[in-house]
Amino acid sequence: MAASIKEVAQRAGVSLGTVSNVLNRPDIVSPETRKRVQEAIEELGFVRNDSARQLRAGRSRTVAIVVLDVSNPFFTDVVRGAESIVEGAGGMVVVCNSGGDAAREHRHLDVLEEQRVQGILVTPVSDGKQPRLDRIVTRGIPVVLVDRGAGLANQCSVAVDDVLGGRIAAEHLAERGHRRIAFVGGPLALRQVTDRRTGAETALAELGLPAPLVVETPMLSVSAGRQAADEIVALPSTRRPTAIFCANDLVALGVLQALTAHGLKVPDDIALVGYDDIEFAAGAAVPLSSVRQPREQLGRTAAQLLLEESTDPEHHEHRHVVFQPELAVRQSSERKRRRVR
Amino acid sequence: MAASIKEVAQRAGVSLGTVSNVLNRPDIVSPETRKRVQEAIEELGFVRNDSARQLRAGRSRTVAIVVLDVSNPFFTDVVRGAESIVEGAGGMVVVCNSGGDAAREHRHLDVLEEQRVQGILVTPVSDGKQPRLDRIVTRGIPVVLVDRGAGLANQCSVAVDDVLGGRIAAEHLAERGHRRIAFVGGPLALRQVTDRRTGAETALAELGLPAPLVVETPMLSVSAGRQAADEIVALPSTRRPTAIFCANDLVALGVLQALTAHGLKVPDDIALVGYDDIEFAAGAAVPLSSVRQPREQLGRTAAQLLLEESTDPEHHEHRHVVFQPELAVRQSSERKRRRVR
Repeated sequence: MAASIKEVAQRAGVSLGTVSNVLNRPDIVSPETRKRVQEAIEELGFVRNDSARQLRAGRSRTVAIVVLDVSNPFFTDVVRGAESIVEGAGGMVVVCNSGGDAAREHRHLDVLEEQRVQGILVTPVSDGKQPRLDRIVTRGIPVVLVDRGAGLANQCSVAVDDVLGGRIAAEHLAERGHRRIAFVGGPLALRQVTDRRTGAETALAELGLPAPLVVETPMLSVSAGRQAADEIVALPSTRRPTAIFCANDLVALGVLQALTAHGLKVPDDIALVGYDDIEFAAGAAVPLSSVRQPREQLGRTAAQLLLEESTDPEHHEHRHVVFQPELAVRQSSERKRRRVR
Repeated sequence: MAASIKEVAQRAGVSLGTVSNVLNRPDIVSPETRKRVQEAIEELGFVRNDSARQLRAGRSRTVAIVVLDVSNPFFTDVVRGAESIVEGAGGMVVVCNSGGDAAREHRHLDVLEEQRVQGILVTPVSDGKQPRLDRIVTRGIPVVLVDRGAGLANQCSVAVDDVLGGRIAAEHLAERGHRRIAFVGGPLALRQVTDRRTGAETALAELGLPAPLVVETPMLSVSAGRQAADEIVALPSTRRPTAIFCANDLVALGVLQALTAHGLKVPDDIALVGYDDIEFAAGAAVPLSSVRQPREQLGRTAAQLLLEESTDPEHHEHRHVVFQPELAVRQSSERKRRRVR
């Protein structure tokens, strides 16, 4: 157990305030007292902890990123992008996993606020008002929203135009002759899911095609995708979709596994398009068509905005940076279907 | 910018030491002074930061896990196992990514030591003596080694018997009739890589088979696997291995992608076995045989040992927990080859 400030004060025969001064404003302490405190610190193996350093520097050089799912390669690529910028500036990144759970997200944010990190990159679990984030910003810790639309007036954000991404995926499937298209993903309230679905629905409506069958999943994971595919396979073949657009690649990989297990062929029986273009999409059993997002670029840009705000808050102007997605077409949606009339 | 302790002291007209006392030992401060300090804190929006709370509680409730590669699903599963235990005990887990770089690992450990986290789970980049970890342990922050063999006397460890894992993989390929077997992975100095290779080499030697061709990779990633496969494909066909054992699944997925791109069939032309059995192994273009490790269990056990040591250091006995791996056989190594004489 390392010694506390109190033990240092006792050993040196000074007050707690004097120890604080030695740590934070050594210039106002007499050389003799300073020496006595420093000797006590060395004898006790006292480690100056964050608060001491932060009282001096204003705050730490740790940037936190709060992600929805640490096991989703989309987020780990965003993390790596952020690391390259933050470490280049001499700081370190720590990753906090909310797991899509608002209560966990709040506990993480509370701890980060107490630690007075340099800044927070966060993909919030829920959309809309974020009183906790507001409070953190008010207290001088900059927050940048990642993969969320232009949020509040008092913070920057980086995102990909997910409505456009959903539109691109649906238009691609319609072009391939599909008329019965399903949308699989969830929770539907998640901003990314809403936007991707809206884009797909708008595109199909504009083409005069029926609205997609929506199969909601409890989360965006491989196992959730497997379960959704089981439901779809159970439909009578006249109602079964001939194409599925999944809200992310993990869901699509799960759908692919379950369809294959049920003896259905992708793309011959059912075509498939995912979202994120993670590294595993191209290497899947059937290489997966997927809407590509500039993941590392998202992380780099978010970190740049954060450091700019943290270093020079006076001159910082909040910005909302939106990237454009594109479709990587692979075997899972390649075959052209005859039109069903 | 949140107010500092100093501003609180000025506003309340008391010394820094008195503010510290109000935060840490309110019982020794007169009610009147306490009220004055508390009012100043509220007016200034002062956030009691980690040090104040830690001086009182001894340390924070944050457990850090330092992983070799945050984008490797092996580690994210270990993280999720650790989270389930730590959050069950009311704490939070933060993830730090060393990226296999010793200098980054050291910077992360320095920051964690200063923050006085409750404990650290770490898979160190290098083996052997760890003076930095020793120092952290001496200062009262427990450390548990993850996926490292029995390390130092002053800490617990959890690991999988990787020598056994390598042996199982090589024996499986030998049983399928393979004689020219390659081992792909690296850096070779990484403990996991050394052990898996040693297991494979020992098994082949015991069976009277030639030693494997070793292709070292700079890291354990999909792109490193692709490059290694390019080298293997360039060999004259008489020297080309008929089977490849990869040090992890990311490497194996890269090898699979590159072999397919070169027109070679898995397992007909070259059989493939990976390691870790990540969720993407079963869903690969050719479902991947892989040595399975109990990943979440590793994380849970590591966190349990850490919390036990942190909560009751007096009665804690250091332990080294070793799990047994097993082979999941899938299509990538299924076909039986004719014996080549």
